[in-house]
Amino acid sequence: MAKKYLVVGGVAGGASVAAKLRRLSEEDHIVMFEKGPHVSFSNCCLPYYLSGTIEKAEDLVLMTPEKFDKQYNIDARVNNEVIAIDREKKEVEVKDLLSGKTYRESYDKLILSPGAQPVKPDLPGIEKVNTFTIRNVVDIDKLQQSIQRIKPKHITVVGGGFIGIETVENLIEAGYNVTLVQSPDQVLKQFDFDLSQIMHKELIDHGVELILGDRVEAFEKDEVILKSGKRFSSEVIVFGIGVTPDSILAKEAGLKLGKRDTIWVDHNYKTSDPDIYAVGDAIQVYNPISREYEMIALAGPALKQARAVAMHIHGIPVVYPGYIGASVVKCFNYNGAAVGLNERAVKALGIEYDYAFVVPKDKVGLMPDSEELHMKLLFEKPTGRIIGAQAIGRGNVDKRIDVISTIMRAKGTIDHLTDLELCYAPPFGSARDVVNMAGFVASNILHGTFKQVHVDKIRSLLEEGAFVIDVREWDEWDVAHIKGATLIPLSELRKRLDEIPKNRPVYLHCRSGQRSYNAVLALQNLGYTNVYNISGGFIELCFYEYYTDKTTGREPIVTAYDFE
Amino acid sequence: MAKKYLVVGGVAGGASVAAKLRRLSEEDHIVMFEKGPHVSFSNCCLPYYLSGTIEKAEDLVLMTPEKFDKQYNIDARVNNEVIAIDREKKEVEVKDLLSGKTYRESYDKLILSPGAQPVKPDLPGIEKVNTFTIRNVVDIDKLQQSIQRIKPKHITVVGGGFIGIETVENLIEAGYNVTLVQSPDQVLKQFDFDLSQIMHKELIDHGVELILGDRVEAFEKDEVILKSGKRFSSEVIVFGIGVTPDSILAKEAGLKLGKRDTIWVDHNYKTSDPDIYAVGDAIQVYNPISREYEMIALAGPALKQARAVAMHIHGIPVVYPGYIGASVVKCFNYNGAAVGLNERAVKALGIEYDYAFVVPKDKVGLMPDSEELHMKLLFEKPTGRIIGAQAIGRGNVDKRIDVISTIMRAKGTIDHLTDLELCYAPPFGSARDVVNMAGFVASNILHGTFKQVHVDKIRSLLEEGAFVIDVREWDEWDVAHIKGATLIPLSELRKRLDEIPKNRPVYLHCRSGQRSYNAVLALQNLGYTNVYNISGGFIELCFYEYYTDKTTGREPIVTAYDFE
Repeated sequence: MAKKYLVVGGVAGGASVAAKLRRLSEEDHIVMFEKGPHVSFSNCCLPYYLSGTIEKAEDLVLMTPEKFDKQYNIDARVNNEVIAIDREKKEVEVKDLLSGKTYRESYDKLILSPGAQPVKPDLPGIEKVNTFTIRNVVDIDKLQQSIQRIKPKHITVVGGGFIGIETVENLIEAGYNVTLVQSPDQVLKQFDFDLSQIMHKELIDHGVELILGDRVEAFEKDEVILKSGKRFSSEVIVFGIGVTPDSILAKEAGLKLGKRDTIWVDHNYKTSDPDIYAVGDAIQVYNPISREYEMIALAGPALKQARAVAMHIHGIPVVYPGYIGASVVKCFNYNGAAVGLNERAVKALGIEYDYAFVVPKDKVGLMPDSEELHMKLLFEKPTGRIIGAQAIGRGNVDKRIDVISTIMRAKGTIDHLTDLELCYAPPFGSARDVVNMAGFVASNILHGTFKQVHVDKIRSLLEEGAFVIDVREWDEWDVAHIKGATLIPLSELRKRLDEIPKNRPVYLHCRSGQRSYNAVLALQNLGYTNVYNISGGFIELCFYEYYTDKTTGREPIVTAYDFE
Repeated sequence: MAKKYLVVGGVAGGASVAAKLRRLSEEDHIVMFEKGPHVSFSNCCLPYYLSGTIEKAEDLVLMTPEKFDKQYNIDARVNNEVIAIDREKKEVEVKDLLSGKTYRESYDKLILSPGAQPVKPDLPGIEKVNTFTIRNVVDIDKLQQSIQRIKPKHITVVGGGFIGIETVENLIEAGYNVTLVQSPDQVLKQFDFDLSQIMHKELIDHGVELILGDRVEAFEKDEVILKSGKRFSSEVIVFGIGVTPDSILAKEAGLKLGKRDTIWVDHNYKTSDPDIYAVGDAIQVYNPISREYEMIALAGPALKQARAVAMHIHGIPVVYPGYIGASVVKCFNYNGAAVGLNERAVKALGIEYDYAFVVPKDKVGLMPDSEELHMKLLFEKPTGRIIGAQAIGRGNVDKRIDVISTIMRAKGTIDHLTDLELCYAPPFGSARDVVNMAGFVASNILHGTFKQVHVDKIRSLLEEGAFVIDVREWDEWDVAHIKGATLIPLSELRKRLDEIPKNRPVYLHCRSGQRSYNAVLALQNLGYTNVYNISGGFIELCFYEYYTDKTTGREPIVTAYDFE
């Protein structure tokens, strides 16, 4: 007998549930309610409309209600908001937002895909300025039209997460002056502080006024006032400071809630009511690495959940693998991808860990478009289980993180990375890929082959008068080097052992950490017991120090920055 | 006590063994013999010198004997050929090719990394023409200098494997007229015939005269004579028709040989002599998918073997995971990657199999640089174990094959692909990645959700008068369509059921196979039992038919080709 399925929310998760339900049955009645005027638009593409990368706002809308009707026999109702669930009668109350009338629809199964709402803080004076958030096509169209009308001298983006960074990039590309205000001391929280410095440099290199560790506290007419007391005029303010799950409907219906007001669901995405499912940004999901529940506002998981729900409704068993949050973001010429937990999260959880930090070329060094790729790979001690990875570079970072995400899903360890067979030809990579390299280094660290210290410790080590050896060659030293380091090129190392003390720790670096690794092993094999490789090398040190040096005016620890 | 290790061959495998041996011990004596004038050059980059992508021949050389000495304390001897192994005395006989003198060196362990030699066939008249092969820097430099001296009107490349295709591409980019003669009916044997058609189109679109299914039989003065009788003048001939293992030294020393004259090694890369190891292109390796031994001439495996050998010599246990041959090649604007077995190999092995063929966009369709990605995913029946995959497109194909290679290494099935969490943002991919899509389709095929027929069957189906339905929309039909197909757009499908016969098979297609998949399921759910999705859709059909149509002059089965 034909069933009636109601879907609340017509974007990623909702539209996918509806389409999959149709593929599984032709006779069922499927109704999809969307309170906005559009179904099935691409949220993730919204910022790209600001730069003209996507030319027309209507291009952002992938499907119309007419197409849902004709192609899928799905009754998609835009401007229709489900305002209440009557679980007793298995009915919903719907408000037609254009006519203002309400009506009821019954259901056999109800699927909630309400998404999440951008946070707009209740700051003093906020009514005096032009503020925007970005959730849907209406929002981005309104922002774009306002900008084109106001022709602002200056735009402020508050929040340096995905949406914030993408908005900043697209506004800069459209030719505006942009200030980014971010209350933590770094952008893009999926990355650790060290790697985020690369993005900070990229942002300021592209003319973004980047204000970290400060927050908007109030507004006056066309003026933004920060906690630090700093104030500047800005005609347009865009908030991208996070989202909260749109769980009010579920809450009012008495459904069980999860962490941070998310909708609680079981491993089949079923809520506490057996006839109601929920998917997407509004639900809590289980992270098998942290063993905690969290909210993941990513499109990929939403689509996987949608498929699983439609299948489960039709009696097909589904697997709940959990979610480890693979993500990627473009920030001008740099790409950053991450999966699993970062060091901050690992520390907070109290997991015993260590990590490899490598900076190899993303393809054969002699290919003209080869670029450094910065990768941090975290693993559990003593098991070697991969906990997370972050990669930033101008090249193909998503490939490397996808591979690591795949190994993590297979419950792999760092040793599995060393032997992976990955595609190689000079235009694409190296015979020893970045992922293999990270695996080698991590394995060496886990097995105690050598010790490392990361670039974030170098400034204080230098202050303590540590013995730092630069094993690069003379010509590299001449371009730039660490003040106070001793130059002993790898090619002279074995002849100049008398210059290297045995009774105190020595710290070795080269450009990327590869040659100094060879030098560290040579010294160890020659009886030195207190030798450290500076992971990431000179290139990473330059990135790590640059932004803070520039913004605080402190004395650099390098004679010059060398990024090329 | 210090040991003495001799390494035969100073390129990828040999140089890596030597460097790793040094990292594991400072006191051992390490000598590396290379019969050519260069150690540690990038074989894989050689063709890129022809186009000037790599500007100087000396850039191809990554390390000099001086650097090996100074940086690694490795005695690298170029122009020194090991001509005999005295296993009894544990000595080798070496010929200094410059002085002509021979000498002996003793060893504790001997590592062979001789590589493979390009095949140069003994054809009548070959002495009358300028013929070249490409194995090392000397070869490519000689070829480049000859070309620049001769200024040929025409160059012939014989063989359409990796080297052949890369050579063709780089010669075309350098401005030469090039004919590619390939004796099988397709280039790049890692791909199946269907996918290779994309490369054929790309080659002829870039002005390559492509001759398939024919072979060079003889030469006359500046003339190439093919088996078909065809003859054309060509001043320069480059052979890239495969390699044979350089195993003569091993053979003469009485070491056990493997398949096709490769050097036999055990799972620690030890030859039949416990003091001799071998790595690289000259050894046979085990393929855990085919369960057969084969020769793999790829740099990645060589480096992994080198590391394993050095570790094993130092008593560190190593894992032998086997090799599944992940590879990638660039052919003008297209990239092609593959891993595992293709359909041809699977058939030959008699494995029960099926496959998914999908052509989704490689990133969100509304991003201006999104491109179609053609993927074929082969799996074992009834287990769903992944056997192999091939991907061709203008975009990031290597990423997708790397992920599948990783899942294969973890002994994964097609169902593991559906739930993989892969990075997504609009500039990089889709929320439902190509790999997920291929997994969905493969899973549906394995579980019998729907039936498919591939584009290679369409011509004969049409000749038999099959009922083919095009479910694209009117505007797409107007641009181009299959002659004899019936247009029933997905948006009209449910209203026009009376036009679709129930008593005979019907074959549905759209552009890529996605909409027709929805239509196939709708018809099945409406009681149609004999419905097939045409996998790959109209786009794949155009590619599949194009080259043969163009070269044979046969009547196309489409009104026009639509590749955009």
